[in-house]
Amino acid sequence: MAKKYNICLDVGGTKVLGAIFNENDEIIYRLKKRSKSGGEGSQDVEKVIVSVVEEMIKESGIDKKELNAIASCAPGVIDQDKGIVVFTPNLPWRNYDIRASMEKKFGVPFYVGNDVNLGVLGEYKFGAAKGYKNIVGFFVGTGMGGGLILNGELFTGNQFKGAEYGHMILDPEGPLCNCGQRGCLEAFSSKQGMSAYIRQQVARGRKTMMAEHVVDGVFRSKPLKKALKEKDEVATEAVDRACHYLAVATGNMINTISPDLVIYGGGVIEAVGDVFLKKILAEVDRYCMPQIRNTVDIKIAELGDDSILYGDLALIKGL
Amino acid sequence: MAKKYNICLDVGGTKVLGAIFNENDEIIYRLKKRSKSGGEGSQDVEKVIVSVVEEMIKESGIDKKELNAIASCAPGVIDQDKGIVVFTPNLPWRNYDIRASMEKKFGVPFYVGNDVNLGVLGEYKFGAAKGYKNIVGFFVGTGMGGGLILNGELFTGNQFKGAEYGHMILDPEGPLCNCGQRGCLEAFSSKQGMSAYIRQQVARGRKTMMAEHVVDGVFRSKPLKKALKEKDEVATEAVDRACHYLAVATGNMINTISPDLVIYGGGVIEAVGDVFLKKILAEVDRYCMPQIRNTVDIKIAELGDDSILYGDLALIKGL
Repeated sequence: MAKKYNICLDVGGTKVLGAIFNENDEIIYRLKKRSKSGGEGSQDVEKVIVSVVEEMIKESGIDKKELNAIASCAPGVIDQDKGIVVFTPNLPWRNYDIRASMEKKFGVPFYVGNDVNLGVLGEYKFGAAKGYKNIVGFFVGTGMGGGLILNGELFTGNQFKGAEYGHMILDPEGPLCNCGQRGCLEAFSSKQGMSAYIRQQVARGRKTMMAEHVVDGVFRSKPLKKALKEKDEVATEAVDRACHYLAVATGNMINTISPDLVIYGGGVIEAVGDVFLKKILAEVDRYCMPQIRNTVDIKIAELGDDSILYGDLALIKGL
Repeated sequence: MAKKYNICLDVGGTKVLGAIFNENDEIIYRLKKRSKSGGEGSQDVEKVIVSVVEEMIKESGIDKKELNAIASCAPGVIDQDKGIVVFTPNLPWRNYDIRASMEKKFGVPFYVGNDVNLGVLGEYKFGAAKGYKNIVGFFVGTGMGGGLILNGELFTGNQFKGAEYGHMILDPEGPLCNCGQRGCLEAFSSKQGMSAYIRQQVARGRKTMMAEHVVDGVFRSKPLKKALKEKDEVATEAVDRACHYLAVATGNMINTISPDLVIYGGGVIEAVGDVFLKKILAEVDRYCMPQIRNTVDIKIAELGDDSILYGDLALIKGL
């Protein structure tokens, strides 16, 4: 690699997180900006991305001529080969050629991939999943994302639409999910799923510290940590239920893939991963075959909020 | 390939099916023998296999010097690379080096793989799945087997234990499965699962043509075809329930993999595949994401009872 710096971005429904990596794959500068999701066109979200990149270059003081490439994730279906955002549920891009637009703007190669795919790739190349070959990743955030490494390569399925086992149905009569199905893993075990449970209990007149934290159907992870620590009953029940279904889904994926690693990441895990891991481990053996279970490690991610940024870097470097 | 003939075997819990393929990949001779499952040691099952091979060579009149290789499947965990049967639930082999034994006996290369893996491989190389790249196979028989082709290659997972989504849990409080879990796909949709439902209804005093056909917990597929044709109520309910859960599992696998093909094979499909396919297609859209569903074909196998034999052949030829 001739040039020193890579800029990596984590674009979510409500924020853009940016980092500059140096030639030793170390993060030397960071920036986070809020973006509004919802009604805006592709250009509006992109404006935030562009301003993050420009501001990072300016504020970090790096030489722009030493910029090697830029990479980003987006939630949804991303054609990694063509650099096109095919479909995102939470952002206004549809078949949007973000590569063409960004390469025109910055004059360096631009890469893009699915957020959780890149999070798992980041953990695989730089984090807790190094050295494994078949990896099932669950990323627990607002939604429930999946990412698969199979035979040592990121597996994206037909037309980059694979690894959506966040929408695996675990109870065909279960609660309605955002995706339109009933009883998906996401409907039980994501922040949205847990929030729905909490709101239900509040509606029944129960008290919980989490009541005030559920905004627009989702809570932030920090108050959950506090609520669990203080043994808030409703919060504990929501987490128990989330972990129960995540254990079933983990068992199903162990039986389906025979991975050598299952890894949990994302915002909820970053905050309360130890609690989740303990509860899942207490149950998961019941939901998969012992001959397969005995060759799987189960861990939490170690790069935290940076998993995706490292995945971007892996994408740039062709790792 | 210097030599003309390949012998391919399908070893199940209660039978050994054999075929000789000529240099044009055509079956020129067939033989089927019953074997008893249960108490025998590895040698006893192997005796049946050996006798099938010997009898086929003798009766077909082929020149033994023109025998290129022999291949077989077995149900269970098979180390395809080493030719070792690691574990079979229905046969008495544990870490058995069948390759060494058979190569010593016949003096030609011997290959072995998991039955449903090879069935899907057979359909992929010679049958209804030709030309697809990411394939999810469900084989409906006494149990419920899975086989995956990913990125154009047979995917076997860590230590050849993958593709056991026949034991995907669809209802954690559901009926007990042979594997020890509750509410597996197999417990609803295999012959064993359907038989359990039929026995339950008979115990409740309901009449069904299938009552007499459930022997040792399993019926044969032909009477099921007749019962469905004659609109036997209990048989129809058992099949409806089987197809409902198979539709849910199909949706889950579509979301998980984003395959370009889902294919159903095995004895039940050979007999009543048209009924199964119609019922599954009527339901499956509810259980997967429309953006993923719209790039998946759903078919039944076309090689019937020969799927596995053709998979053996693909294994021999390194296809």
